[in-house]
Amino acid sequence: MAKTICIKSPGTVANLVCGFDILGMALNEPYDIMKLTLTDEPTVIIINKDNFNLPVEAERNVAGVVLLSVIEKMENKLGFEIEIEKHIKPGSGIGSSAASAAGAAVAANHLLGNIFSSEEVIQFAMNGEKLASGVKHADNIAPCIAGGISLIRSIYPLDIIAIDSPPLYVTVVHPQIEVRTSDARQILRKQVLLKDAIKQWGNIAGLVTGFLKQDYDLIGRSLEDVIIEPVRSILIPGFSEIKIKCKEAGALGGGISGSGPSIFMLSVDEKTAKATEKVMKEVYEKIGVDYYTYVTTINNKGVEII
Amino acid sequence: MAKTICIKSPGTVANLVCGFDILGMALNEPYDIMKLTLTDEPTVIIINKDNFNLPVEAERNVAGVVLLSVIEKMENKLGFEIEIEKHIKPGSGIGSSAASAAGAAVAANHLLGNIFSSEEVIQFAMNGEKLASGVKHADNIAPCIAGGISLIRSIYPLDIIAIDSPPLYVTVVHPQIEVRTSDARQILRKQVLLKDAIKQWGNIAGLVTGFLKQDYDLIGRSLEDVIIEPVRSILIPGFSEIKIKCKEAGALGGGISGSGPSIFMLSVDEKTAKATEKVMKEVYEKIGVDYYTYVTTINNKGVEII
Repeated sequence: MAKTICIKSPGTVANLVCGFDILGMALNEPYDIMKLTLTDEPTVIIINKDNFNLPVEAERNVAGVVLLSVIEKMENKLGFEIEIEKHIKPGSGIGSSAASAAGAAVAANHLLGNIFSSEEVIQFAMNGEKLASGVKHADNIAPCIAGGISLIRSIYPLDIIAIDSPPLYVTVVHPQIEVRTSDARQILRKQVLLKDAIKQWGNIAGLVTGFLKQDYDLIGRSLEDVIIEPVRSILIPGFSEIKIKCKEAGALGGGISGSGPSIFMLSVDEKTAKATEKVMKEVYEKIGVDYYTYVTTINNKGVEII
Repeated sequence: MAKTICIKSPGTVANLVCGFDILGMALNEPYDIMKLTLTDEPTVIIINKDNFNLPVEAERNVAGVVLLSVIEKMENKLGFEIEIEKHIKPGSGIGSSAASAAGAAVAANHLLGNIFSSEEVIQFAMNGEKLASGVKHADNIAPCIAGGISLIRSIYPLDIIAIDSPPLYVTVVHPQIEVRTSDARQILRKQVLLKDAIKQWGNIAGLVTGFLKQDYDLIGRSLEDVIIEPVRSILIPGFSEIKIKCKEAGALGGGISGSGPSIFMLSVDEKTAKATEKVMKEVYEKIGVDYYTYVTTINNKGVEII
């Protein structure tokens, strides 16, 4: 049994427009790299190989709490040392905590000879999400582990369904502003109009059908969120201008990635995805906000051993 | 060009559990029969061949208003005589008005050499639904015309998507009580909890995926309605007992058909569908409510020329 393993853990886009809390998608870029080593003491040693200054105390580190929960479930008391090289910026809205959590859970299970089921691995990883955002959600974790697009039909009991999709390009812009997940959650109304909810479930049914039937046009028509986006987008400067102009540039549509501040757009081809990136850059240059962009595709592998 | 046409127009189940207002399904039974004849006067003559005592004044008859709206759009001013033999009881919740409306619209277009587009035919038919329930909805009309399962992603603009499904048996019970569509609509709250709406869109995404991936188990798990059913089912005696016992008998699940009072259940095979029927009968025998039952399958043809 190998004592050390290296993995790549991908960024993810959760809350796919009308798919708030239930749909997530894995990206080929950015991704984190982690090296996990089995040790003889039932403790977790964290070594950060990046400049994000994340906590090294296991109880306060996303990957750390995941590994602690793994240790708790193990029969023979081993431990872990983990080296983390994050490229997904914490707070970007593209699944930084999920990449740490899912990467640690998958790597640990692999080192232990895959003694835990996929569901248990997801449960371990969700402990990391709980630390990061206070909520055990799986809409980043599930696609991060499995790749592709995941539908989280239910959390209790956990029911995750892979949604096949046609090839899609994803353009992401991460404006360098802070939107705290807790603020993004607090701003939402607890009640919504039934007529809006009906629109939303028409769109989510359309979106899933568009993916499964490989119908790009239907995907585009269904990428509409009448409930969350109108509220949350006010926290993101330039949001509506970017959305309108990206669609004019040919993008199928898109919206807030996770709880923001990143914005993502889906396109059928690379040329359009790059034209979309250009639009995003122009808007933030004009507003004077720093940003990163990514032009990437859907990652169909999930957490990968390298 | 033929001057007379005979058609069969099928019953439909709208509001497919979590698919309130957006999903409908056509049934092989019951169905209405209509005979439409082109006449030289721009009027509509209605001849009822059943005992439902529906109005014969065109403006007050569902098929009548549909045909009047067709005449209004025609260039050369012809008219129609229609003989209607309804088998779908008005007020049953299995698309009686939609069968009249869709049947009349499709038959008229056929007699006229299909000069109107499918969307125009649906628009004509929706005039009948407006007369029947006050609302232009398409979740019975669309599957009635096209057969199978229809997703109505949006009404304005009209966006209807066919959802393929695996073979399914449908058991319907129509308890002989009156639930007025307007009451069933009024009883609904205008606002719903966001957390319930999220559950509902997880289920609708699961249901559509289950149909498209032919995953019976997923269909069953997704047939859950946390918003409409808890409110409306109180108008239907025996509802929860029927639902629990039908699932115990092996049905995948089901719920209120349209706005009730009919209840439908989906099953994988005929044997289960019949066991489900037996359960329904037993419950209404015990309560002492008269009822009709149907054991049928999904109709994949829609309105059919005979």
